[in-house]
Amino acid sequence: MEQASVSDLTLRRLPKYLHFLLGLQKKKQEYTSASEISRHLEVHHTQVRKDLAFTGVRGIPKRGHKVNDLVKALEKYLNWDMTVYAILVGVGNLGTALLNYKGFETSGMQIVAAVDNDPQKAGLIYNKIKVFSIDKLPDLMATLNPSIAIISTTKEAAQKTAEKLIDNGIKGIWNFTPKFLDVPEDIIVENADIYPSLAVLVRKISELG
Amino acid sequence: MEQASVSDLTLRRLPKYLHFLLGLQKKKQEYTSASEISRHLEVHHTQVRKDLAFTGVRGIPKRGHKVNDLVKALEKYLNWDMTVYAILVGVGNLGTALLNYKGFETSGMQIVAAVDNDPQKAGLIYNKIKVFSIDKLPDLMATLNPSIAIISTTKEAAQKTAEKLIDNGIKGIWNFTPKFLDVPEDIIVENADIYPSLAVLVRKISELG
Repeated sequence: MEQASVSDLTLRRLPKYLHFLLGLQKKKQEYTSASEISRHLEVHHTQVRKDLAFTGVRGIPKRGHKVNDLVKALEKYLNWDMTVYAILVGVGNLGTALLNYKGFETSGMQIVAAVDNDPQKAGLIYNKIKVFSIDKLPDLMATLNPSIAIISTTKEAAQKTAEKLIDNGIKGIWNFTPKFLDVPEDIIVENADIYPSLAVLVRKISELG
Repeated sequence: MEQASVSDLTLRRLPKYLHFLLGLQKKKQEYTSASEISRHLEVHHTQVRKDLAFTGVRGIPKRGHKVNDLVKALEKYLNWDMTVYAILVGVGNLGTALLNYKGFETSGMQIVAAVDNDPQKAGLIYNKIKVFSIDKLPDLMATLNPSIAIISTTKEAAQKTAEKLIDNGIKGIWNFTPKFLDVPEDIIVENADIYPSLAVLVRKISELG
């Protein structure tokens, strides 16, 4: 796949395709088609066709695209050769779940440290990732140089945490709190927003009557 | 806003708009425009214009749309008058975080019980929600009649859990595991997929160089 410029909207769809294709791979399904992907992921089939063309993997008439080839192309595109380092702030239940989560290993991001404002948590280790006191933030930035911060604090602490992180040189924030963060324009914020999928689910269930 | 039929793609955008608008409301901003929303949420402005028209809230020339009116219309549409009941399965770190999460209160979904296969967890209460042994699932279904199950088990346990839930009458699943679930066609599955936002963040950070 070319490292062409790609819109955020396309980029958001690619992990969904990959997730679906990995499911097919496990079921040992060899070929798939734009219309099959479209049916399962509720993306319009013309859009899927365009996105598949972007992967550079060509389809075979009447059989479709090779699942393995699509998986390889998407993994290459999404994971890159480089890894982005992240620091996690807020080791509560959600923070712990994120630290223990094995799925990030192939995501292009690696959590290299965690911090918490509870000094009792300093020294804990989850999934080989060590928790430090929040005072150590400047040291950690200097030695580990993470570019992303994952904020899994309380909603109330989120804005102050973001400001502190930005003061210490963080360029991107993955926000797991429901707080809408107010940050300078050159800082990249992504909200890990679970509401869109809840909205779809609640709506469909309600329509069942 | 009319209860017109709306595509899943539109439905997925509405919570994003609401989240952004609630942020403006907190900053006491009175009016917004399709182009402002478009800039912040990376949705094309013609699409935003279409979605705003769907809310039924009319804009005022040169001022835009009243933030409060849009918030009211979206909340009404997304929350409904009815509430859908959910049961959570898997009270690990992520499950506990979800039980303690306050944001669901205005989401149209209410978690009414939790179950876990560890008998030691039975009797625990988080955020007024009680944890039961997994054996109690048939009783809970009969008495509380939840239509949605939230699966926050391990990846390995997800498929078996889904099958058990479906056998007990669950119609919709909100899947928080990375497992791609194989379910009958009449069962609605939504994956709480955090990878799309990670993909965008990693990509943008890498582009900073």
